Amino acid sequence: MNAPADPHFATRIRESFGRQKAMAFIGAKLTSVEPGATEITLAYREDLTQQKGFVHGGIIGMIADTACGYAAFSLMPADCSLVTVEYKINILAPARSSLVARGEVVKAGRTLTVTRAEVYAEDGKHIATMQQTLMMLPGTPDTPE
Amino acid sequence: MNAPADPHFATRIRESFGRQKAMAFIGAKLTSVEPGATEITLAYREDLTQQKGFVHGGIIGMIADTACGYAAFSLMPADCSLVTVEYKINILAPARSSLVARGEVVKAGRTLTVTRAEVYAEDGKHIATMQQTLMMLPGTPDTPE
Amino acid sequence: MNAPADPHFATRIRESFGRQKAMAFIGAKLTSVEPGATEITLAYREDLTQQKGFVHGGIIGMIADTACGYAAFSLMPADCSLVTVEYKINILAPARSSLVARGEVVKAGRTLTVTRAEVYAEDGKHIATMQQTLMMLPGTPDTPE
Amino acid sequence: MNAPADPHFATRIRESFGRQKAMAFIGAKLTSVEPGATEITLAYREDLTQQKGFVHGGIIGMIADTACGYAAFSLMPADCSLVTVEYKINILAPARSSLVARGEVVKAGRTLTVTRAEVYAEDGKHIATMQQTLMMLPGTPDTPE
Repeated sequence: MNAPADPHFATRIRESFGRQKAMAFIGAKLTSVEPGATEITLAYREDLTQQKGFVHGGIIGMIADTACGYAAFSLMPADCSLVTVEYKINILAPARSSLVARGEVVKAGRTLTVTRAEVYAEDGKHIATMQQTLMMLPGTPDTPE
Repeated sequence: MNAPADPHFATRIRESFGRQKAMAFIGAKLTSVEPGATEITLAYREDLTQQKGFVHGGIIGMIADTACGYAAFSLMPADCSLVTVEYKINILAPARSSLVARGEVVKAGRTLTVTRAEVYAEDGKHIATMQQTLMMLPGTPDTPE
Repeated sequence: MNAPADPHFATRIRESFGRQKAMAFIGAKLTSVEPGATEITLAYREDLTQQKGFVHGGIIGMIADTACGYAAFSLMPADCSLVTVEYKINILAPARSSLVARGEVVKAGRTLTVTRAEVYAEDGKHIATMQQTLMMLPGTPDTPE
Repeated sequence: MNAPADPHFATRIRESFGRQKAMAFIGAKLTSVEPGATEITLAYREDLTQQKGFVHGGIIGMIADTACGYAAFSLMPADCSLVTVEYKINILAPARSSLVARGEVVKAGRTLTVTRAEVYAEDGKHIATMQQTLMMLPGTPDTPE
């Protein structure tokens, strides 16, 4: 059902993730790439925290957004790029540990793909849940213009 | 209507923002604090970009989330803290410039506050729009435990 | 800026609304159609209430969704139809009166349009706020297949 | 984990659903009540359709909202009521058949509960997915004032 259109999807995604300077900046790692699902891991760092010392909600959103995006991208043809249309995230608990965001495809449409991510703390606590919409841009490179 | 419960709200917010290591990390500045409204400005930097060289959608979410949060916080009593319950953001256009996020209160309730943020590029282009829910935690400090 | 692509947009929208059996069923009226903005009015009726006697949150969503959709549709070409991709609604207060939902376009893109609606009670109370995404389907009729 | 605080939760929910005139109005049935999960079934009817003859997106939202709400309510104490704070729904496919909405609790907090619903058509097609936030009102009756 979630068959990738491009057999080299994992390589393509790892290269794309490698171009995401924002992911390197916060120290996020792409730790799993499967058809329709990816995982991003983030080590706890003080410089990612908000005023009470917890990981900033926007940082949690960043890794969930990215995990969802690459889950969608894994099923798309090699010659396209994609954009995030929108995402909605519920923060379920504060986090002061490393995090893992698991993104997966809910529905892969021709133009739009709907995805979901769950974010967990090191101890397994459920930190956040995201629902996201992405749009495929056919025939556009996934690189800077 | 949007009267702050704490006359020293601006000082309290500037101090809280100053404790947000994640905001310093990405170079975000709190450039305006009014009752029920704040503004956060972010300079363009390559290390905040995604794979195509645009500002990462999660970074846009970070500044919008924070602008909304402090808009809500500006109307709350001095002895409380607040948490982001959830936010939803539509990315309207890609951005390769500095950004400003303007957050404002839509409805300040006893426990929950609903806010909105608009994010604009340097040239005035509308980059993103956010709708957010926050919860007040009465009698809890806005500092690390 | 929000110039309609079809000069007969208002007639087209009134006819489309007239085909919405669900709107007739709940008694909703299309009370204003402007370029990029529409208004739907709903009389209070007991059969639209939830367990505590307030207008059902889903009914509030229905009129906000429809007001947003026609706001988007007003700017689109005559030969297209559109689908709701997603919407997010905050219920700000319970309502036990007639309601008006005002939808407006935030950003009209080539494929996707982002809209917003505010719902007010008869006494002016702010009842709900919605953020929505729609997709244009070019060259498809806005009628049953 | 999802242990109901009230052993009579199923009876309480069936009675509450029975007071929802809007559910009777559209013909929705509460077809399953479990701890942390409920199911609502809706027969296809022409008077629930939009302009193209599909079930109105707002009607889909209504049953998903209600399924989520009662999933949350099933875990709450007997003497409380609850309100929908917000919900976000993605419409994944148009529907011209009966529908079933399955709601479940993602996180039951002290004040806020986060839920999710999936809506399916008669043939198993995935029609919509919702993420929702509810607030418990302790010591308030779940009946008209």
